[in-house]
Amino acid sequence: MSGSATYADWIAVDWGTTHLRAWAIGADGSIRASAQSDAGMGGLARDAFEPALLKLVEDWLGSAATPVLACGMVGAKQGWQEAPYVAVPAKPAQLAPMHATAPRDPRLALFIVPGLSQASPPDVMRGEETQIAGFLAAHPGFDGVLCLPGTHTKWVHLSAGEVVSFQTAMTGELFDLLSSRSVLRHSVQAETLDIDAFGDAVADTLSRPERLGQRLFAIRADATLNGTQAAVSRARLSGTLIGAELAATRPYWLGQQVAVAGAPALADLYARALAAQGVKAHALDAGPLTLAGLARIRAAQTEPSLT
Amino acid sequence: MSGSATYADWIAVDWGTTHLRAWAIGADGSIRASAQSDAGMGGLARDAFEPALLKLVEDWLGSAATPVLACGMVGAKQGWQEAPYVAVPAKPAQLAPMHATAPRDPRLALFIVPGLSQASPPDVMRGEETQIAGFLAAHPGFDGVLCLPGTHTKWVHLSAGEVVSFQTAMTGELFDLLSSRSVLRHSVQAETLDIDAFGDAVADTLSRPERLGQRLFAIRADATLNGTQAAVSRARLSGTLIGAELAATRPYWLGQQVAVAGAPALADLYARALAAQGVKAHALDAGPLTLAGLARIRAAQTEPSLT
Repeated sequence: MSGSATYADWIAVDWGTTHLRAWAIGADGSIRASAQSDAGMGGLARDAFEPALLKLVEDWLGSAATPVLACGMVGAKQGWQEAPYVAVPAKPAQLAPMHATAPRDPRLALFIVPGLSQASPPDVMRGEETQIAGFLAAHPGFDGVLCLPGTHTKWVHLSAGEVVSFQTAMTGELFDLLSSRSVLRHSVQAETLDIDAFGDAVADTLSRPERLGQRLFAIRADATLNGTQAAVSRARLSGTLIGAELAATRPYWLGQQVAVAGAPALADLYARALAAQGVKAHALDAGPLTLAGLARIRAAQTEPSLT
Repeated sequence: MSGSATYADWIAVDWGTTHLRAWAIGADGSIRASAQSDAGMGGLARDAFEPALLKLVEDWLGSAATPVLACGMVGAKQGWQEAPYVAVPAKPAQLAPMHATAPRDPRLALFIVPGLSQASPPDVMRGEETQIAGFLAAHPGFDGVLCLPGTHTKWVHLSAGEVVSFQTAMTGELFDLLSSRSVLRHSVQAETLDIDAFGDAVADTLSRPERLGQRLFAIRADATLNGTQAAVSRARLSGTLIGAELAATRPYWLGQQVAVAGAPALADLYARALAAQGVKAHALDAGPLTLAGLARIRAAQTEPSLT
């Protein structure tokens, strides 16, 4: 990673709560180098951001300032520097990155992509707006709903390149807490999910969503009384929570064109759950979306006439 | 605690996951001494139970064997010795304690109260059956529903001194996990609850229980965007979860005589939530119920003709 060949035209940065990833992008748009660390914003004091970034990208810097375009929780109130939310409706590809005053090193020109906010019902996102920009770069005419499952799953209504509205469900965080820290942890330690039990749990919860509180403890009770396999119990927990999410987001997917972008196994679970409701969802890997979105936003930033 | 005056006729023990409490009961039924520690079964290996108990009660023992009647998780599979569940319908006052083989000290004669199980929907309880026996000792003619709010809230249908059916909700554990370990923890750190916000959240959730997943993240988003007070956010979290529980347990309380026995502040919240639904619930302190239940079960054990 030495010599002029790795000098970056600009640097793309995905900085979330638990991870930091960076890419050196050449003048021709190619990826010249990449690096990552676990220096997520959640574990950093404000004055620790710049050293954490330099540690990853210093070899890519020339003597002049290199633009760094970052997205994610790095722009939160508790991040490096706050990039105020932009209210929806908004076009992710045209979000104006905030020129941060923070870096002291003159070789860094830091820009932070703002998150999106919605007044009613109140909701926010940070990082997903960039994934959406990446999705729209590949599917410019998409009119429908994009689901981004994860810790905080986002359901996003897209039309004419614009986020019209969105809704967050805490499904991933609930699954993590319940499967690792609640009384259910004794019953759900399995590497795999029983796919039939998953489907049954989704269907049961969608048909009687008000029974969620009862269904969760029943997973434990059934394992205690009947020795239910962990792969079945884990599938019931996942299916119950995803079923509850689908019940809460029905207006988002019922009769809509739906795409699900996430980690492949998780996106597949959502697509299966939706298929059982008669919705043919297109599942895709969310892995490449953040970099694609940063490239799209960078292009709009440098050539405004294109947007 | 020395001398024959403190010799116990029998010893009552409440042994849960996180606590151990013991009472020395005289031949006249009076409490001669009490003691407690944090040696809950959750932190004990199997051979650590006897020393933990002796540490509390040794001064109360004579040279002959003293009966010890224990309830709670001490009788679980992971406890000192498993006391198999008794299936409902069952009369808590007539549960036959299991004579344990475990203690090596000849001064201890250990009896463990069995928990209750229900085949369909699958459910279990351990410890609450003794609280129910205590409640029924004071309200022998009660015909209705007893709610025992806590980590795992129990709703219990009682008739003619019998548990007919019951249902568990994980409301307390969900509240603890979400308020201390999820993204909501940043917004709900308050000593008090805004009681109006609590009532609104209960009503909103009961009217649209399928929106639970969305409501939870909205608590955080509203705090982020609008600076909502922590006492309001905390009340919304509590009200949303209790509202979801009431939605799941509607067949238990709708049109029924309801008593709520719990920590006084929590029992009061449940009574308020039920009152808003037109159900006049009788709130009482669950504190004395376990000892009262152990005394009732001990009386039935020693004088079977009374039951």
